[in-house]
Amino acid sequence: MDTAEVITQFAKMLENLDRWLETATAFAEKKKFPPDVFAQARLAPDQYELIRQVQSACDAAKYAAAYLSGQKAPSHPDTEKTVRELRTRIQTCLTYLKTFKAADFNGAEERRVAPPWMEGNSVRGDQYMGRLAVPNFFFHVTTAYAILRHNGVELGKRDFVGIKNWSDLS
Amino acid sequence: MDTAEVITQFAKMLENLDRWLETATAFAEKKKFPPDVFAQARLAPDQYELIRQVQSACDAAKYAAAYLSGQKAPSHPDTEKTVRELRTRIQTCLTYLKTFKAADFNGAEERRVAPPWMEGNSVRGDQYMGRLAVPNFFFHVTTAYAILRHNGVELGKRDFVGIKNWSDLS
Repeated sequence: MDTAEVITQFAKMLENLDRWLETATAFAEKKKFPPDVFAQARLAPDQYELIRQVQSACDAAKYAAAYLSGQKAPSHPDTEKTVRELRTRIQTCLTYLKTFKAADFNGAEERRVAPPWMEGNSVRGDQYMGRLAVPNFFFHVTTAYAILRHNGVELGKRDFVGIKNWSDLS
Repeated sequence: MDTAEVITQFAKMLENLDRWLETATAFAEKKKFPPDVFAQARLAPDQYELIRQVQSACDAAKYAAAYLSGQKAPSHPDTEKTVRELRTRIQTCLTYLKTFKAADFNGAEERRVAPPWMEGNSVRGDQYMGRLAVPNFFFHVTTAYAILRHNGVELGKRDFVGIKNWSDLS
């Protein structure tokens, strides 16, 4: 499970997330309520709403790809207000992730990573990825999924992992 | 982010999960309700309750360690009914995970993995890990966390990742 493979999996999960938002939009249309009710939905009053969960998932993937390849991450301002805009944000992130080739991550595991919030300190790339980027990324996509499930959207575990049968794993 | 590192991170997340359950128990005692209300809590009527989320997180970690090292996974029957028993289940899983040394996972990425549900088929170890075990594991720990947050337990993102500052990453 090298770095390029993890970034590919992040992209796959973002594509799944986009499909959940599509399903949520269709559910809202069927039930005749505005789909952007979902945009503001949250599981606890002091937890991020769907908008910030999606933005945070995108950023976790974007920064992991940038840091582990030694690039500067592009700015994707957090301006989204609607489910439609969130889907565009996901596409913007996916377009960025797809600019990378596996070779861009050569040596990524040993690369020193120094995000601004570390205030001049750094950690090894594999530690950044395994201990922070992966848990963070899956936290936000799973919480986005949970917000939709909690609000009645018909999704199941296969929609989460995006795998219908074993052959989708290869 | 080699296989041994992923298994170490799974163990760390299970230790975090145990702390969330400890926090939830203290919250229940303070509010004077039975902590096992949490055991049956869920976010949607057709989604797993906390008990099965915790069992599934443990199993995702257990099977990943067993399959990627070529071992047979021990049986951990799903008999838990209480939060206390869930915490014991987590310890049982952690004890198993800690029997592994990094060398047990030499060649794990290329190892063929053939869970029974693949009905005689197999996938490469790194594909099993990155496309199935990691998403599944984080799905269940995050959903367990979300169930507790939704029910008022005072937890935050730092409790989720188990990192207080950058130096915890090294």
